[in-house]
Amino acid sequence: MPLPKSFTNLVSNLTILPGVGEKTAERYVYSLYEKEMDEIENLSQSLLDFKKNIRTCKNCGCLSDFDECEICTESGRDKSTICVVEDSKSVFFIEKTGKYRGYYHVLNGLISPIEGINPEDLNIEKLLKERINDDVKEIIIALNPSIEGEVTSMYLQKLLDKYDVKVSRLSYGIPMGSDIEYLDPIMISKALDDRKIIS
Amino acid sequence: MPLPKSFTNLVSNLTILPGVGEKTAERYVYSLYEKEMDEIENLSQSLLDFKKNIRTCKNCGCLSDFDECEICTESGRDKSTICVVEDSKSVFFIEKTGKYRGYYHVLNGLISPIEGINPEDLNIEKLLKERINDDVKEIIIALNPSIEGEVTSMYLQKLLDKYDVKVSRLSYGIPMGSDIEYLDPIMISKALDDRKIIS
Repeated sequence: MPLPKSFTNLVSNLTILPGVGEKTAERYVYSLYEKEMDEIENLSQSLLDFKKNIRTCKNCGCLSDFDECEICTESGRDKSTICVVEDSKSVFFIEKTGKYRGYYHVLNGLISPIEGINPEDLNIEKLLKERINDDVKEIIIALNPSIEGEVTSMYLQKLLDKYDVKVSRLSYGIPMGSDIEYLDPIMISKALDDRKIIS
Repeated sequence: MPLPKSFTNLVSNLTILPGVGEKTAERYVYSLYEKEMDEIENLSQSLLDFKKNIRTCKNCGCLSDFDECEICTESGRDKSTICVVEDSKSVFFIEKTGKYRGYYHVLNGLISPIEGINPEDLNIEKLLKERINDDVKEIIIALNPSIEGEVTSMYLQKLLDKYDVKVSRLSYGIPMGSDIEYLDPIMISKALDDRKIIS
């Protein structure tokens, strides 16, 4: 007997989610059957809204509903620091700590020769050519403490040597091998406090 | 800084999925950002299609896109047996084995006084009043071997005593591929009770 088409269709479409195989997708679908129509409609609509509206900020590269993100356009932020991060996840996470009031620059990746990601694939040129102006006194490199993060840090450090800015990185209060988004806010705040000048 | 609205909306709508909290939902959303528009549209549309089309078969209670499910309307099935199961999941699962060619009856739940589920909340009356006809020779009770499953089995068994049908249940036993020493004593004693003469 073929399963209901609307059922198998939804199962197969749900498997585009990361880590969701057929079994998990089926569990989701059985549970969605119990939901009210308006919950399903909201989910369905929010998927479309997200895909239609979300883009990267033309300035810092962070995910936003607008061409310029809400951090870049927020008044009263500290113009003297730019915090360089791997992705928008890191921005949202650091923002949650409430500790940092400067601007961000999102690389949208890390250098990884194994995965074929080279420096020119990252949002680096924009940082150097457009974002470092006379107001900027410090660049904080806040990348994951992984091999790729370290390599990218060193690469950026070298490039930034030519500019009249302090370059710092998050202190190793953060445990090696971890992922920034899974650390608790206090740890991140401490690491911001203890950041080290590296050049 | 508030996160992009389209982002937070989608995160909160995804948390209606079972076992999906904010962290997992965020992981899904970051991954959905990388997907093509048509993949998102397909997922969005299949959610609506599912909710609009899916219903329970008026005959057996199984999930279907039609008023009568594809098993109930399939010609050539064995009219002499009805397999009573807890939910549509069990139907789809038993169908995958290809072993059973009779009909099904879906209770859509199990008796559970703790959760306030009483016999009258289940799809039992229909089974007794409309589905047991002269063609039906055997009712196979295929419920989970849990407390609720056992209670429901016993309840059904009592009711079915009044009808001229054989009542059977799935055999209890040691699961294929298991190791006897790791099974619990109850399972072993059930397997001893249900032992089969082999010569």
